[in-house]
Amino acid sequence: MTAEDIVNLALRRSLFFPASEIYSNSPSGFWDFGPIGTKMRFKVLDFWRKNLVESLGFLEIHGAQILSEDVFRASGHLSNFADPIVKCKKCQTVFRADQLIQEHIGSTVAESLSTPELDSLIQKHQVPCKKCKSKEFENVRKFNMMMGIDVGATGQQKGYLRPETAQNIFVDFARVFKTSRKNLPLGIAQVGASFRNEIAPRNTLLRERELGQMEIEVFFNPKKINEVSDFGLVQDYKLNLLLQGKKEVSSISCKESVEKNIVSGKLIAFYLAKVQQVYSGYGFPSDKIRFRELDKDERAFYAKETWDFEVKTSHGWIELIANNYRTDYDLGRHAEGSKQDLSVTEDGEKFIPHVFEISAGIDRTLYCLLDTTFIREKRGQGERVILNLPVQVAPYLCAVFPLMTKDGLQEKGKEIFQNLLGYHLDVLLDEKDAIGRRYARIEEIGVPFAVTVDYDTLQDQTVTLRYSKTTEQKRVKIADLPELLWKLSIGKTTFETI
Amino acid sequence: MTAEDIVNLALRRSLFFPASEIYSNSPSGFWDFGPIGTKMRFKVLDFWRKNLVESLGFLEIHGAQILSEDVFRASGHLSNFADPIVKCKKCQTVFRADQLIQEHIGSTVAESLSTPELDSLIQKHQVPCKKCKSKEFENVRKFNMMMGIDVGATGQQKGYLRPETAQNIFVDFARVFKTSRKNLPLGIAQVGASFRNEIAPRNTLLRERELGQMEIEVFFNPKKINEVSDFGLVQDYKLNLLLQGKKEVSSISCKESVEKNIVSGKLIAFYLAKVQQVYSGYGFPSDKIRFRELDKDERAFYAKETWDFEVKTSHGWIELIANNYRTDYDLGRHAEGSKQDLSVTEDGEKFIPHVFEISAGIDRTLYCLLDTTFIREKRGQGERVILNLPVQVAPYLCAVFPLMTKDGLQEKGKEIFQNLLGYHLDVLLDEKDAIGRRYARIEEIGVPFAVTVDYDTLQDQTVTLRYSKTTEQKRVKIADLPELLWKLSIGKTTFETI
Repeated sequence: MTAEDIVNLALRRSLFFPASEIYSNSPSGFWDFGPIGTKMRFKVLDFWRKNLVESLGFLEIHGAQILSEDVFRASGHLSNFADPIVKCKKCQTVFRADQLIQEHIGSTVAESLSTPELDSLIQKHQVPCKKCKSKEFENVRKFNMMMGIDVGATGQQKGYLRPETAQNIFVDFARVFKTSRKNLPLGIAQVGASFRNEIAPRNTLLRERELGQMEIEVFFNPKKINEVSDFGLVQDYKLNLLLQGKKEVSSISCKESVEKNIVSGKLIAFYLAKVQQVYSGYGFPSDKIRFRELDKDERAFYAKETWDFEVKTSHGWIELIANNYRTDYDLGRHAEGSKQDLSVTEDGEKFIPHVFEISAGIDRTLYCLLDTTFIREKRGQGERVILNLPVQVAPYLCAVFPLMTKDGLQEKGKEIFQNLLGYHLDVLLDEKDAIGRRYARIEEIGVPFAVTVDYDTLQDQTVTLRYSKTTEQKRVKIADLPELLWKLSIGKTTFETI
Repeated sequence: MTAEDIVNLALRRSLFFPASEIYSNSPSGFWDFGPIGTKMRFKVLDFWRKNLVESLGFLEIHGAQILSEDVFRASGHLSNFADPIVKCKKCQTVFRADQLIQEHIGSTVAESLSTPELDSLIQKHQVPCKKCKSKEFENVRKFNMMMGIDVGATGQQKGYLRPETAQNIFVDFARVFKTSRKNLPLGIAQVGASFRNEIAPRNTLLRERELGQMEIEVFFNPKKINEVSDFGLVQDYKLNLLLQGKKEVSSISCKESVEKNIVSGKLIAFYLAKVQQVYSGYGFPSDKIRFRELDKDERAFYAKETWDFEVKTSHGWIELIANNYRTDYDLGRHAEGSKQDLSVTEDGEKFIPHVFEISAGIDRTLYCLLDTTFIREKRGQGERVILNLPVQVAPYLCAVFPLMTKDGLQEKGKEIFQNLLGYHLDVLLDEKDAIGRRYARIEEIGVPFAVTVDYDTLQDQTVTLRYSKTTEQKRVKIADLPELLWKLSIGKTTFETI
């Protein structure tokens, strides 16, 4: 399987494709998701919500994407959210300076280098323009990736599209905490788009200018970082950790990670375990996931500890989630910027809560899921393509296939489809083409089950239930379908035990 | 019930509140939804998806919010999506010209007036500045409400935040139609934010700068506008129609509306019926909803027929959905602009599909739901507040309340809560305050059921199931709860029949 396979599948089935694609000069880095891709995206979100938000007692908000300039002045984005760029004097093409050097010399360039340091590197290595080969560049400068908006008719108010969904959460924390009547630690989550004016978007969903994020900010009392009531549930769970300076992943239990001070406290280990459990549940194989510990140069200046959750794909290891111990940086900055009291009082003591952040990319998660679950299997003379997705992440739970469009089979199929929809089950109806082709079409998008409506159905009110992965079939009563599919959809039964 | 009640409820429970609100000078027209508001929003969307998208065999896409400049040149937004504004010479305040005149003279000003016509009206009526009372204004001019973005580091590529989600649908139509293997008529839906640089945002969610939309564009063959296979299902269904020039709503069956040429064909009547059925399902009372027929001056120049679906609220009649027969305008413009073939071939004939649009506001729907379902009831000495929402639109299905936090009740409550979550049921857990206050708290946000865990629970594994609307209680087995709540959530049983 190659990266090309994924893009081919995506375009053939319209999972995702370039936004505004009928216009040839459209800006890159923007993607639209077709019907199946949209369904897949929902399932990624649902699974995350159920397992990483609701079952932990966390709350989700839905905020505006354009926020006040003041928000980003306080957060530091207006001064710091910038990439180094360099312009070719001859052809005027603009590049991200660190990437240009990196690709030329074939090794990593630290993100922390200053613009003069990057100028020197370009000189030293005689880096050529990728387009015209000239070696004459203007000086490297910082380019802020924020997208600004003039709000209102006078143009006097400035807003910015948020570069991360997290900022609504920080700004809204005091209100949400107070009105929720919950105690710390409290996670507040948000799903939505963020906007970054990337110089060079690439690899489809892996580097976008408009990107989907699902973020959780866990607010806690730093004095209680080792008071985690459910820690017993994960203490023996093994984390895949790639420690600073190591080349191999270590399998370390949560308990050990705390005892050896690999993490700052039980709370960190607990949420890392939850992340790894949920991402295993998505179907990422255990040997393809790891938390990479970032060293001081790599992590944000305010982060005390950062673990990038990475997945091994055909593009190499890809970061899916930044897990950051952000301390009191965010609430502290906003308290100062807004002159509002964002503190919490616990046990008679007033303090600014600390934050542990779990910041995941939706589109990246989807892309990496396709990459790691895509399977080619020999089948007779040809081959078949399967997305080996878990039932709970499949775009649809079940397809309904009337064998023929005549003799009342089509009507019966439609009736069963509508009945299942009435039970809020994720079903699709497809009446076109030979049944074998219809099976193949659902297999390649990971739909686990198909109900086939045939001539026997009209006699005995039963249908064939087929399991895509094994191609095994069982005969079940139409009347039993809703409850059976419901239980399959929530993992309360399996095909084998029917 | 007044508009103030809604805002009070919204702020008290953080249903929604101004974005960036901790900063005093934040631009208006942007709103954040707190945890309960976010849940309500999801339910509004789920209900719409189930009933107006999936059950009609329609498809949903999820597109980028920033689209190419070419898209909006072709759609006409760059030249036409503008409001008339006027600036006070003395205090420099900018107003929307038509609204300023309207508020002064107390009657409607046609949207189609030219800027010189508006200048004359200001003169004629001696309209004063609302802020400083001066009567000296600059000339009225058009202000384009599109929000533009410079994409990339060179600033040579221009994108715009979409002012309606519909544009992704038009631009993606040919691809989605082809890869879906569906026939016309085909509805393509999208949910998401749109952006309009309103001069004067107001009435909280009713006029926002960033607004949530749920839109459906139904593509069809204009020759087959009267071929609707399921028309029989709605032919006797009565539409609430406020016809042009009439003061009273007429109750007219779909069949009659077609026969009397009130609508352009069966297809239009069919989807109007679906809209009215779904919005009745949301809980809007029949005497508070209507389709208002727009006359030629009011509707967009490309629309052959427009029916605004309106709801009667404490702000008067509010438009929730624009139902537009847009003909081949959109695909025609994009075919021309992109030089792509966006036609469809049916029965050997090639044509540009026509479009019937169902364009609904999410936040407006939510706001109007609050407004129409808010009830104050006498209760002993005091009163109680109920949101009388249907089960399927309630933010949560059921609350779990351990009576006490001691004697193992808290643990039992948590266990039941987690078990129900495992069945993907929308439940909340609340352990604080006296049980009566907890009931009141869920009643005012429309949660229909509560499970109370008491001392008997520990003995006989039963709980009390309470129905918020009637306050009636029944004793049920814990083991029966998941299936019972599931059936309640999808309308397959009712509290009365338990």
